[in-house]
Order: sequence, then C-alpha cells, then structure tokens
Amino acid sequence: MIDLIHYPLDPFCRSIRLALAECEIDVELQEERPWEWRADFLRLNPAGSLPVYRDESDLVLCGVYAISEFLAESGADKQSRSFQFLPGGEEERAEVRRLIDWFHNKFNSEVTSYLLEEKVMRRFDEKKAGAPDMELMRAARANLRHHLSYIGHLADARNWLAGEVLSFADIAAAAHISCIDFLGDVPWEENESAKNWYARIKSRPSFRVLLDDRVPGFAPPEAYADPDF
Amino acid sequence: MIDLIHYPLDPFCRSIRLALAECEIDVELQEERPWEWRADFLRLNPAGSLPVYRDESDLVLCGVYAISEFLAESGADKQSRSFQFLPGGEEERAEVRRLIDWFHNKFNSEVTSYLLEEKVMRRFDEKKAGAPDMELMRAARANLRHHLSYIGHLADARNWLAGEVLSFADIAAAAHISCIDFLGDVPWEENESAKNWYARIKSRPSFRVLLDDRVPGFAPPEAYADPDF
Repeated sequence: MIDLIHYPLDPFCRSIRLALAECEIDVELQEERPWEWRADFLRLNPAGSLPVYRDESDLVLCGVYAISEFLAESGADKQSRSFQFLPGGEEERAEVRRLIDWFHNKFNSEVTSYLLEEKVMRRFDEKKAGAPDMELMRAARANLRHHLSYIGHLADARNWLAGEVLSFADIAAAAHISCIDFLGDVPWEENESAKNWYARIKSRPSFRVLLDDRVPGFAPPEAYADPDF
Repeated sequence: MIDLIHYPLDPFCRSIRLALAECEIDVELQEERPWEWRADFLRLNPAGSLPVYRDESDLVLCGVYAISEFLAESGADKQSRSFQFLPGGEEERAEVRRLIDWFHNKFNSEVTSYLLEEKVMRRFDEKKAGAPDMELMRAARANLRHHLSYIGHLADARNWLAGEVLSFADIAAAAHISCIDFLGDVPWEENESAKNWYARIKSRPSFRVLLDDRVPGFAPPEAYADPDF
C-alpha cells in the first residue's frame, strides 16, 4: 500500500490524491501538520513541505513535482480510461505543464496561499496567531476573479483546460479551487463556464476522496459537497 | 535559432540559459521587463512570467517547468558529455526533481525573490518604488545561511547535488546563487563545501553566458566573475 503524508486543506496534496484516485490507486493517508516542524517528518522531507509519497519498497518522493512526474513516467495512469497526467505529444505536454505551473505556482501565490494562511493557518499555527489581514484577503479574492475568468476562457475553448483529455492541469486547478470552495470563497455566480468545468470535475468519483475532509473549527458551505452547486 | 525571452537577473531564465549552454545549443536572447506587463508579451505568455522559449517551428514554451521538461524529453542533453537534465532511473530522477523544486520554489520564496524584489525591482518598477525593507532583507540573508549549509551538506555527501552526475538540480541552484552573488549577498566564508561546489560549477564554460550580464545601476562585486573567488 502507498502512504501519502498530507494535510487535508493542502492543494498540492489534494492534487496528488485526486490523481491517484483517477488512476484507481489506493493510498493510506497520514495527516501531518507541517507548521509543527516535527523532527521525524523533516528527516523524511528536509523541505518540510507536503505531500510526501512512500511506496511498498520504501521509495520516498517529496513534493508534488517529483511525485506527479514520477507517476506520469511510471505509467500510473495506464489503468484510467479518461485521465492522463500528460496527454499528447511534446507540444501538448508543454501546454499541460504550463497550466500545472499556472495553478501550483501563480494561482497558489496569488490566491490559495493567502486565503489558507489568513483563514486556516492563523487558527492553528501559534506563530501566526492574530486577526486575518483583511487587505490580503481582499487582494486574494480580487485575484481569484481574474483566475476564474481565465479558467472560463480555457473551458470555453477546449474540452478540458489543457486540451481534449482530462489531464493533471485540470486536477491541479480543481485541487486549488476545492480548498477555496471549502472556505466558501468562490464567487461561482461570476463565471458560468468556470462553474460548469468545476461541476464536471467535481462529479467524478475521484472527487469523493476530498469531499469528506473535515478540519476542526471549519464547516464547509453546504454546496461544497454538492455536485449540483 | 531558438529565441529565449528573458531578464538578466531572473533565476529561472538563468537556469535555462545555463542548461542550453551545457547542451551547446545556441540561443538568441530577447530582454523583457516583466513588470511592464507589455500586451505583446502577455499574448505570448498570459502568466506574464519568464522565461519564454520559441523554437524555429514557432513552438512556444512558457516557464521553467515546461521548458526544462521539454528539453529533457526531447533529449537536448544528448550532445553533452557531462550534463544531464534528469540522470538515472526513476528514483534518481525524483531526487533531481526534489532539488529543482527546492531551489526554484523554496529557495526562491525564502531568499532570491526577497533580495531581487528589495534591491532590484524597487529601482525599476514604479509600483514598488521606495526604500528597501531591511527586515525582509535580513530574513532573506538568514534563510540563505541555512540553504548554504544544506548545499554544503549535499556537496559533502555526493559528487554533484543530486548524485554522481551534474544535473538540472545543480543548474537551478547555481542560477539562484548567481543572482544573489551578483548582488554581493553570499557569505561565502561561512561554508567551504558550498563554496567549492559553486567554484566548480562557476568555472564551467556554460557559466560564461551569465558572467557578462549587466544591469543598469548595478556593479557586481569583483569576485562575481572570478572562478577563484
């Protein structure tokens, strides 16, 4: 059995959990609170970041980049009828990677990291205790509107975000959006095309692995787990 | 001829320039100031980030992740006697990617981005004009000490940072360090092993492509271009 060390509201962990579920690969989850900087965890991943993947032969992979490229190279998606990590030829693959980068870096630094930091980390991480910075949260929500309209633009032009096939670009995007949706921060009424894309991905069986996540002190909005939100 | 749209003090661009030089692939550089958000540039890369790669057949690749994985997949490093993007089997490749991630994400967000922002961007980007934030700069320099000692630790244990062969992990690390070294901010006296590793990589012919970079208003320290610093 594969172990995945994760935190429920971490978008990088969510992207790997979704991808593994698409590949119908079972995984044993171990929750880690990275802000505790536990020595045992740091021995496994000196970067202190999530997710960390460990397979039956004790191969340890640290971080979403190493894990997703490893799974793609090892053909983990061969079992899946409708999902491929990096479908197509070199040009299509570069487009998938451009969008993975978009969500795991640009979207994360402009939206997800701010909202998680201000709403979630401040509650759990003693070093960050204090009232949320409302200006940062407003900036993140303004950025989110631009990103939603980019998602809508891609979803109008293509079957899935990077092209014809459901790829790790959609999964990365959905992982970030799902964290923010858990916090009730996505203005779905503002972009019908983005909403329809998310409804399609949210109704996939793979998404069930996320929808039961709970974090003490947080109640996701009712629509969070509803595919017809 | 390949076009690379870059900015001289951008660590991501530097990593691709170094890798292309290791592969003995000539490239035509076009300087872009990403903070100007030029419409023509945004049409090419809506993320507004660097580098952007364009080959003879007008294939456009955006960002260091898509470009480096494309070059690795297309065997660009086959010409090189001593450099491979991702050497070894799946475990070794995962280790290379863990360290690429370390430098392009962790090191960047803890060190490079702060120092470039406070020292360089404030001078050129009107929206960021003002005195450098000394507290941020002190934090970045304190973080840099931890990273130097991690580099030294890896360099003591291995021939190159990720293993036996010079890989894109070394190149990514050297790209970030070279930007900070340009600003005179690396306390080389603090870690002999890290310094020796950097001296080895800096004396490679590929490094010449960086050492002549100049940015108006900045004079790199004398030791910057000296392989025996």
